[in-house]
Amino acid sequence: MLGLMQDWPLLLYKIIDHAAQQFGDREVVTRSIEGPIHRTNYREVRDRALRVAQRLEKDGIKLGDRVATLAWNTWRHLEAWYGITGVGAVYHTVNPRLFPEQIAWIVNHAQDRAMLLDLTFVPLMEAVQDKCPSIERYVILTDKAHMPATKLKNAIAYEEWIAEVDGDFAWKDFDENTAAGLCYTSGTTGDPKGVLYSHRSNVLHALQGCMKDTLSVSAQDSILPIVPMFHANAWSLAFSVPLAGAKFVLPGAKLDGASVYELLETEGVTLSAAVPTVWLMLMQHMQANKVELHTLNRVVIGGSACPPSMIEFFEERGVTVNHAWGMTEMSPIGTIGAIKPQLAALKGKDLMAIKAKQGHAIFAVEMKITDDENNRLPWDGVKFGRLKVKGPAIARRYFKREDEEILDEEGFFDTGDVATIDPNGYMQITDRAKDVIKSGGEWISSIDLENLAVGHPDVAEAAVIGVVHPKWDERPLLVIVPKEGKEIDRDAMLKFMDGKIAKWWMPDDVQFVREIPHTATGKINKLKLREEFKDYKLPSA
Amino acid sequence: MLGLMQDWPLLLYKIIDHAAQQFGDREVVTRSIEGPIHRTNYREVRDRALRVAQRLEKDGIKLGDRVATLAWNTWRHLEAWYGITGVGAVYHTVNPRLFPEQIAWIVNHAQDRAMLLDLTFVPLMEAVQDKCPSIERYVILTDKAHMPATKLKNAIAYEEWIAEVDGDFAWKDFDENTAAGLCYTSGTTGDPKGVLYSHRSNVLHALQGCMKDTLSVSAQDSILPIVPMFHANAWSLAFSVPLAGAKFVLPGAKLDGASVYELLETEGVTLSAAVPTVWLMLMQHMQANKVELHTLNRVVIGGSACPPSMIEFFEERGVTVNHAWGMTEMSPIGTIGAIKPQLAALKGKDLMAIKAKQGHAIFAVEMKITDDENNRLPWDGVKFGRLKVKGPAIARRYFKREDEEILDEEGFFDTGDVATIDPNGYMQITDRAKDVIKSGGEWISSIDLENLAVGHPDVAEAAVIGVVHPKWDERPLLVIVPKEGKEIDRDAMLKFMDGKIAKWWMPDDVQFVREIPHTATGKINKLKLREEFKDYKLPSA
Repeated sequence: MLGLMQDWPLLLYKIIDHAAQQFGDREVVTRSIEGPIHRTNYREVRDRALRVAQRLEKDGIKLGDRVATLAWNTWRHLEAWYGITGVGAVYHTVNPRLFPEQIAWIVNHAQDRAMLLDLTFVPLMEAVQDKCPSIERYVILTDKAHMPATKLKNAIAYEEWIAEVDGDFAWKDFDENTAAGLCYTSGTTGDPKGVLYSHRSNVLHALQGCMKDTLSVSAQDSILPIVPMFHANAWSLAFSVPLAGAKFVLPGAKLDGASVYELLETEGVTLSAAVPTVWLMLMQHMQANKVELHTLNRVVIGGSACPPSMIEFFEERGVTVNHAWGMTEMSPIGTIGAIKPQLAALKGKDLMAIKAKQGHAIFAVEMKITDDENNRLPWDGVKFGRLKVKGPAIARRYFKREDEEILDEEGFFDTGDVATIDPNGYMQITDRAKDVIKSGGEWISSIDLENLAVGHPDVAEAAVIGVVHPKWDERPLLVIVPKEGKEIDRDAMLKFMDGKIAKWWMPDDVQFVREIPHTATGKINKLKLREEFKDYKLPSA
Repeated sequence: MLGLMQDWPLLLYKIIDHAAQQFGDREVVTRSIEGPIHRTNYREVRDRALRVAQRLEKDGIKLGDRVATLAWNTWRHLEAWYGITGVGAVYHTVNPRLFPEQIAWIVNHAQDRAMLLDLTFVPLMEAVQDKCPSIERYVILTDKAHMPATKLKNAIAYEEWIAEVDGDFAWKDFDENTAAGLCYTSGTTGDPKGVLYSHRSNVLHALQGCMKDTLSVSAQDSILPIVPMFHANAWSLAFSVPLAGAKFVLPGAKLDGASVYELLETEGVTLSAAVPTVWLMLMQHMQANKVELHTLNRVVIGGSACPPSMIEFFEERGVTVNHAWGMTEMSPIGTIGAIKPQLAALKGKDLMAIKAKQGHAIFAVEMKITDDENNRLPWDGVKFGRLKVKGPAIARRYFKREDEEILDEEGFFDTGDVATIDPNGYMQITDRAKDVIKSGGEWISSIDLENLAVGHPDVAEAAVIGVVHPKWDERPLLVIVPKEGKEIDRDAMLKFMDGKIAKWWMPDDVQFVREIPHTATGKINKLKLREEFKDYKLPSA
């Protein structure tokens, strides 16, 4: 027997409708790509999003079509998302940090019919447009006055483009499971994989994001998402901020310390979200200029592990740090570092130990860690296993790879991470599954060994990879870049590590190199490193 | 094109699973019906809810069956809800304040197969059980030691009943639109009407309730819902409190000032929710005993309009008052009195004027006011019209009256209230639609006239009804009960009102009576009053 409640599908335009009606005058402030600070509000953002929808329909864009955006966080990018999804089309966020050939690859894979792009990226697309034949038109996110001379196909300034319709338009009706957004993961191996969000998953994730113990979004807030919209929905903020009616502050292209600091202060920002690299730039700016924060009261840090010194920097200034973890396939928030009531009395190092973990699962994210046979492992904070997740805003398939099963028999998605979960439910990533070293049926965390090795005063960088071993399957090899002008003795290095880890975790050998290969995003490229050492044989083998 | 996110239905047991896994040790504290304070936690509540589910299945209860609960807010009642819905059956909350014959009527209408009831209500059901043949078994929410001698059919103590199974049970799988809860409205006219909540609507409403600007539920909170679970899901708290992992404090049968005050203080309650009558008892207790509140920081007041003096009482003590409005058909929250950012600077009377309104619509509640032809009226705070609402947790039909259309052509449900909405979006109920006086095509609020009339020092109670008029269709008649020993002159009364309202709002006549009829819940029974005056003719007619 079904309930008798209204059929009110969870559609993204309900969010901007609510924002416009209940918080119509609430400001949306952007550091524009053209330079000046731009001010609008939710009423105008909705009105213009309706024009985008109407204009797309005029161009023949319909339900299910993909429209690419290659853009910073601005009010126009926000309008574009609500407009695109308002006709049932799909915003495909292209990450400008990809190599040009990768951009062409994903545009072709997505078969984007149009692209809305910032001035910044016109040269980039001019260079690859010949490889992107599906794109019928390029809309430059600017006005006529700033429109550059460009050879981009059917190029038009966004302001001109939306001025061609009158805005007398109604959002389309469709199922809440309709595709809304497409974001490709930039894996280090194989082709990029497209995650296809739905209206339902995005609206539910916005509600999850609004929760007091997740991002705690309120109409009283002024919120600056520095994390880009092309990074998995700006961690839900593109939806949860208008949903709650908070003031929205958008940084445009300038993510340097001085620019971010200025926006935080002039716009009374209370909540901001970014990766550690961005916070580091802010910290350096503040320290160099001896300036302090006056309105910020909490930050969300995610994307990669947050160093304790960063947590301390903010908390000393009365800014609560929420360490979050997630991934593109998870919309993206999976865990948040909110302190549970039973830990409320923790202080100092004990508190920091919890805050440095990735946090606990939010509602509608189920989590488990398993061994290689998919048996659940205990939440004891010690045993680590493959981290798997389940929920309404988590991928079940990749776009155009629908025949590939990516869930286990219980419906969990394998994150590719290896993690522990402690008795309080706090998860800590210990490694990438493909980097973990499998020795005699047990797992050794390469990251733990690396963190230990870089603690040596003469080590600039360290990487650990598994090397084939006849008896143990794999054993750890430690690869080290010594600090300039320093030399390190192999045995002294091992002695430095001895006693700080389990005996059987000790690397079997140490190799010294001048350089360790990195990925485009600055992480250690273990794939390449393993290749470099493919002929290497352990002395113990 | 559909998105590729996981099919993770919004089911109520996901809430208690999350609470048990992430907040397993968090306390659930009850003033038990037997007397002592009882302590359990979410892990145990889930374990026992699983037993309820397993036990119901053993009794043959299956998807869609109705199971009545006639109970106060206790841990057992909470377990029962999650257990009943965990097999896809429907908890039917019976309001013990109904007349016995009404209880029999709704039990028969619902065709409840079992009833779980508190010790308090055993005599009540013994008196009417002959009229409730659909009930196969009565489960008394107590243990063997407290089990009374009773003639209730197949009566068994809850603790004995769930001890008959081992708890090795898995929740059932079903569609998220499956019926979960049934609650009858106690209208003053006609038969009670059943609102049939679904898993989806309850889970979504729990998320709406958790929002920072709705009830702001956090794991850090200790929450006491004094509003009963038989009043529309205890205003979402039966679901949003476990969802967020907050400490849950349940008052049992004792809602008097002393008992409530004791729980607030001993259990460190930070948030509580109740109707004005309950708060009045608490205020009287606190004033009589000269005691203060030490942990409470916010209260939600709803059910009927909250007097400004009550708001002041709490706010003087540092307790933020959130005035809320909703109805059974709305799950129930529709609006909340959170202060919007543009009003943050308001103080004193201006702030109170906003707080005394019913608040603004929360996300996923669309709202409009219309005239009799369903034209939308402006949000100017002056014009009042029929209040209509739309959303995923709002009824579209009543149970077993599925052929009766209750939505307008835009899919809005008519609340039966008449209201204004101001330019900031704050709604204020001005009357019940059936009580509003329609004079010459314009509407006059009976409540406004009553509020003005009771301001006269010699008036004990006042009611205004519309009386047929040949020229104006209806004109207002003021009915007054003078204070004991006082006499009021008709013309003096009208003179008292003159100048304080629009000329055409002035009552055409005043009648003095010894008593005004009331409903079971203490409201003025205008239906009966209109009947008493059915032969009355206005002097102006």
